Amino acid sequence: MSNQKLFNVAVVGATGAVGEQIIRLLDERNFPLKELKLLSSARSAGTKLRFKDREITVEEAKPESFKDIDIALFSAGGDISKALAPHAVAAGAVCIDNTSAYRMDPETPLVVPEVNIDKINEHKGIIANPNCSTIQMVAALKPLYDTYGISRIIVSTYQAVSGAGAKAIQEMNRQSKAVLEGASVNPEILPVGSLPVKHQIAFNAIPQIDKFLDNGFTNEEMKMILETKKIMGDDSLEVTATCVRIPVVYGHSESVYVELKQDFEVEDVKKLLAEAPGIVLVDNPEKQEYPLATDAAGKLETFVGRVRRDLSNPRALNLWIVSDNLLKGAAWNAVQIAEHIAIEQ
Amino acid sequence: MSNQKLFNVAVVGATGAVGEQIIRLLDERNFPLKELKLLSSARSAGTKLRFKDREITVEEAKPESFKDIDIALFSAGGDISKALAPHAVAAGAVCIDNTSAYRMDPETPLVVPEVNIDKINEHKGIIANPNCSTIQMVAALKPLYDTYGISRIIVSTYQAVSGAGAKAIQEMNRQSKAVLEGASVNPEILPVGSLPVKHQIAFNAIPQIDKFLDNGFTNEEMKMILETKKIMGDDSLEVTATCVRIPVVYGHSESVYVELKQDFEVEDVKKLLAEAPGIVLVDNPEKQEYPLATDAAGKLETFVGRVRRDLSNPRALNLWIVSDNLLKGAAWNAVQIAEHIAIEQ
Repeated sequence: MSNQKLFNVAVVGATGAVGEQIIRLLDERNFPLKELKLLSSARSAGTKLRFKDREITVEEAKPESFKDIDIALFSAGGDISKALAPHAVAAGAVCIDNTSAYRMDPETPLVVPEVNIDKINEHKGIIANPNCSTIQMVAALKPLYDTYGISRIIVSTYQAVSGAGAKAIQEMNRQSKAVLEGASVNPEILPVGSLPVKHQIAFNAIPQIDKFLDNGFTNEEMKMILETKKIMGDDSLEVTATCVRIPVVYGHSESVYVELKQDFEVEDVKKLLAEAPGIVLVDNPEKQEYPLATDAAGKLETFVGRVRRDLSNPRALNLWIVSDNLLKGAAWNAVQIAEHIAIEQ
Repeated sequence: MSNQKLFNVAVVGATGAVGEQIIRLLDERNFPLKELKLLSSARSAGTKLRFKDREITVEEAKPESFKDIDIALFSAGGDISKALAPHAVAAGAVCIDNTSAYRMDPETPLVVPEVNIDKINEHKGIIANPNCSTIQMVAALKPLYDTYGISRIIVSTYQAVSGAGAKAIQEMNRQSKAVLEGASVNPEILPVGSLPVKHQIAFNAIPQIDKFLDNGFTNEEMKMILETKKIMGDDSLEVTATCVRIPVVYGHSESVYVELKQDFEVEDVKKLLAEAPGIVLVDNPEKQEYPLATDAAGKLETFVGRVRRDLSNPRALNLWIVSDNLLKGAAWNAVQIAEHIAIEQ
């Protein structure tokens, strides 16, 4: 790509788990960069990070940080996005926001490139990156939606602790070690850092991710329900979610029941999935091959297996969908959007 | 209970994980025992086990081991049950079989006391104990079935490694330690000891329990589907299952979507569950209280929480059901059946 336009890119939340992956991907994918600006909270400002052959000093993110920035990738929490993204937009940047701040805003496109990349041109300065558990599910279901139609989805998740940040990973490792040594465990972070009650994650399954709403669902579950409808552009799509944290470091797994609107052959569904962009079909029961979180960790694709026709509803399928929650579920989806913006300019 | 009849009881598989719990429960529950005979494979015969103030030497289980035995509790694998239960029956014993050998035999009652204790008198010598993941689900759903009717169940499980035996627990602990130390992992047991391919269970989720069938479901999933219909006595009941092994030692968790046949109020459902025998309702989202595998471990009850009306189907509920897979899921359900036999004689 000679004569390609080069972009000034800012990463807000550069020292966080997702920010780190965004920077790595911009490097590995050889994103057409003019300048890379790394921004963080005042606390982390001054940190030096390597990028290719350079060292970049992280600066404190401020309203005036976005002069001349073309693309700003936000992953520093919803409050930071709310406070700073409008300034970035005013300065002329396109913001790709990895927080929940703007996802359900009717004026903000919510984009998974494999599903609705056509929406990126409808932005008014901000493009939202969906929730991790939503992204991998809609990426895998899109080919089925387009071919057969989908009337309903019932999903139960098996979510990795890295989704709750680096401190949650440290906590799980610390607790696991303590349990193995017969020592006591003092939960401090999970399930929700800002809530008073903590539960052991080591050798456990916690059916709470994010806060509870009055309807008995958690925020995480409502994200899956509402974001899926918005990304698919189909308010009639029925979605039910139960979101569960399990002791896995990287990679969300999902048990998905999906009702299609038309008859199908399982072999056709597998062929569709195998040929779909960003999807890898791993489905050989006779060889005990199916997606596993440990295999998906570090990969950009979404892995689908255990594809089988439901026994009680011939128009329904059961699937097992796995992807790295920090990559396709966050950093990679954001960088994919940035790449599409770069290609279109 | 003065003048109560006392029973000669044999435990087949006395040195296994479930056998150990059966012996403990017979002790703690003060089962009306005359003699307790402990039986095992030739390999484990000679082992001495404590029972109250006595020491009992484990004997090799043989066709002639059941003379004068009133009740024989089998948990030594399906092949042993197939080989020896007929001899126990011929000797006049009632067999309570914890393996899958006789579960789907039309002449063998499949019993969960909270659901269908009336079936225990229909036996022809053998009463089958259902699969662990089935027992806790039907125990929790029975009050809803009786009050509202149930048309369909969609369940995804989060199953503990103890269900695969003591060696699987050792393997998970060994792998967990290795991963925490940055060492390599060499899976040897899970997902299925008798199959060639092994997968890491530490910090992972394996969507395979037992062997695959031609329809793409595993044996474990088909057990949940077929046993639920048999125990509920309702072939029209639609069940879909996805069974997943996760890194938990004791306690299976289940994400259950259930469609009822009548309208309901969520508060009425919670009241029904709270008052149901063997069920403990743990459901205070505002206090972050819900069932957890680590809390259920060592307990006899089935714990239910996250009770909420489905948002897309007002006749459907979502639930989170947790119980100790070695206790209510195996040893306790068997000893409960034995207690009912003892009371009725």
